Amino acid sequence: MSDNADAFDKERKELNELILSGDNLDIKRFFALDNSVYRDGALDSRTKELLGLVASLVLRCDDCIKYHTIQAGKLNVTGKEFDEVMAVGLVVGGSITIPHIRRARKLWSELNDDEGAD
Amino acid sequence: MSDNADAFDKERKELNELILSGDNLDIKRFFALDNSVYRDGALDSRTKELLGLVASLVLRCDDCIKYHTIQAGKLNVTGKEFDEVMAVGLVVGGSITIPHIRRARKLWSELNDDEGAD
Amino acid sequence: MSDNADAFDKERKELNELILSGDNLDIKRFFALDNSVYRDGALDSRTKELLGLVASLVLRCDDCIKYHTIQAGKLNVTGKEFDEVMAVGLVVGGSITIPHIRRARKLWSELNDDEGAD
Amino acid sequence: MSDNADAFDKERKELNELILSGDNLDIKRFFALDNSVYRDGALDSRTKELLGLVASLVLRCDDCIKYHTIQAGKLNVTGKEFDEVMAVGLVVGGSITIPHIRRARKLWSELNDDEGAD
Amino acid sequence: MSDNADAFDKERKELNELILSGDNLDIKRFFALDNSVYRDGALDSRTKELLGLVASLVLRCDDCIKYHTIQAGKLNVTGKEFDEVMAVGLVVGGSITIPHIRRARKLWSELNDDEGAD
Amino acid sequence: MSDNADAFDKERKELNELILSGDNLDIKRFFALDNSVYRDGALDSRTKELLGLVASLVLRCDDCIKYHTIQAGKLNVTGKEFDEVMAVGLVVGGSITIPHIRRARKLWSELNDDEGAD
Repeated sequence: MSDNADAFDKERKELNELILSGDNLDIKRFFALDNSVYRDGALDSRTKELLGLVASLVLRCDDCIKYHTIQAGKLNVTGKEFDEVMAVGLVVGGSITIPHIRRARKLWSELNDDEGAD
Repeated sequence: MSDNADAFDKERKELNELILSGDNLDIKRFFALDNSVYRDGALDSRTKELLGLVASLVLRCDDCIKYHTIQAGKLNVTGKEFDEVMAVGLVVGGSITIPHIRRARKLWSELNDDEGAD
Repeated sequence: MSDNADAFDKERKELNELILSGDNLDIKRFFALDNSVYRDGALDSRTKELLGLVASLVLRCDDCIKYHTIQAGKLNVTGKEFDEVMAVGLVVGGSITIPHIRRARKLWSELNDDEGAD
Repeated sequence: MSDNADAFDKERKELNELILSGDNLDIKRFFALDNSVYRDGALDSRTKELLGLVASLVLRCDDCIKYHTIQAGKLNVTGKEFDEVMAVGLVVGGSITIPHIRRARKLWSELNDDEGAD
Repeated sequence: MSDNADAFDKERKELNELILSGDNLDIKRFFALDNSVYRDGALDSRTKELLGLVASLVLRCDDCIKYHTIQAGKLNVTGKEFDEVMAVGLVVGGSITIPHIRRARKLWSELNDDEGAD
Repeated sequence: MSDNADAFDKERKELNELILSGDNLDIKRFFALDNSVYRDGALDSRTKELLGLVASLVLRCDDCIKYHTIQAGKLNVTGKEFDEVMAVGLVVGGSITIPHIRRARKLWSELNDDEGAD
């Protein structure tokens, strides 16, 4: 993992715990759902992570993109596949997604030690 | 195809022609790109259609959802797979996607003559 | 209720049943959560409906606005209160919310037989 | 004007009156501001209408696009200029703007009796 | 107040002054409206701040969330009430609101020296 | 140029190169289109930059706003014109655009050594 990804992961966990410490049952249920929806089903979890990635990209949620980029790397998504997900998001969501693609592509390179080739 | 899908397809084609008749080169290039991005590559076109579908859902673009729902049916996406794409979009995009899921699920049933089973 | 609201309610129920017939557990859980989050808690359900209404307005989800407008009427929200929710949404979300306010205000008048006075 | 544009204009006026009948001062002030911001200033009103048009397009507000399309026609915007505004919006906002461009381009043709030429 | 909130408040005021120094009357009017819409009316200012908070959350505007979170604290909103506003926003707006809830909940804890209990 | 703008420009170029190094043809085509759409046509590039600026503002894309603000300065847009673009975006997009206007106005002042007068 890159330092960037490690720090992100640590802060994410701490703040999730802070949120869940409030004992709001609806929030807890949502967090559980947010895990279960990416598990293997009729579609495998790898495909679902790519769905989560493109959805995060077109909604321009940097932290969500970061999370799914890290997950994609763990699930052996290749650089070319990653770029194709970015390309679909770019065409659907337009040039306003470009700053997010820049940051995602940078993190991808840090995590996978490549420059787009696989 | 359902009547709904046929009428949609016919109007979509007529209005695309009207747009392209304006001879704006940038618009023509974008339309070409909007086709090529869903073609087989490192990811197959079936996966890319699902990416387009979930992106359209979270951005709540009914006509885009309709288009990708029709394409998904042609590419033999199953009812359970379709529902899982809807589920990811629902969790990522929230309850505001529900009215779009209602309309998408209705069209899916018309096109595939089922009620979610596959 | 107005005819508009009755027809909306009927179609909403039928299509929700169609969605739930697909037996996707994550979708079912989300629908349950979408009910529980508006129940009395530290904030009463009336306040929560107003939160749902303004959130729907700024996200420009007509069906969601319609649903919460009907709920607001049932919970004895007054015309002046309704207008103030619209005003907050208008300032936060800008002039693009105006077409939605037009349709919401029309439905409100049909349901409550008034023109903004309470 | 086209029948489409006439009906739109009539309903828009009636519902604006309904909204303003509620005597909410903040809403009234917003409506006044929504007029004044398009008046001649350092930029002329023609340029400001094009700004309003592209903003409405990327935010995918059909009624707002319709309004500014009608205004653009009155201010002698040409078909080629109109298409270039659509092209900027399409690149910035992505393929999800296409259904709105379809409807805008159809209205433009009805209003201006052309097919993109000027 | 926390240091975080103090620094935010200071920069916010300085830049608002810079904006208003431009002598654009429409912008000045909008800023006045942005104050008046949260004042006591048929709904009290406390309820209106919660409306502003949930609207800011679903539109994922961090600075707006920060502002309304600070205001909510001043108006004696409790931790449980705050969490319920977050829960409504989370269900309406989906998992993409979670990074914003993380930051909001952290600021809330800094300002109110608690972890969700009230 | 300000230091802020210089650093932005440098990082933007480096990361664009990283993205393009992936050899994804669709992404390359989109980037080409993103340049050509702002070139002189029936509308001059100055007007098109203002369209890009207001579109970026209402979509709340800080990096896009920054880019078009720098371009606007190079094309001799005046402070009053810049403020009027901000005003249109503010009315169309609502108070959630204000944090972005704050940052845009600060950059404008750094770049143009003024405070809104021209």
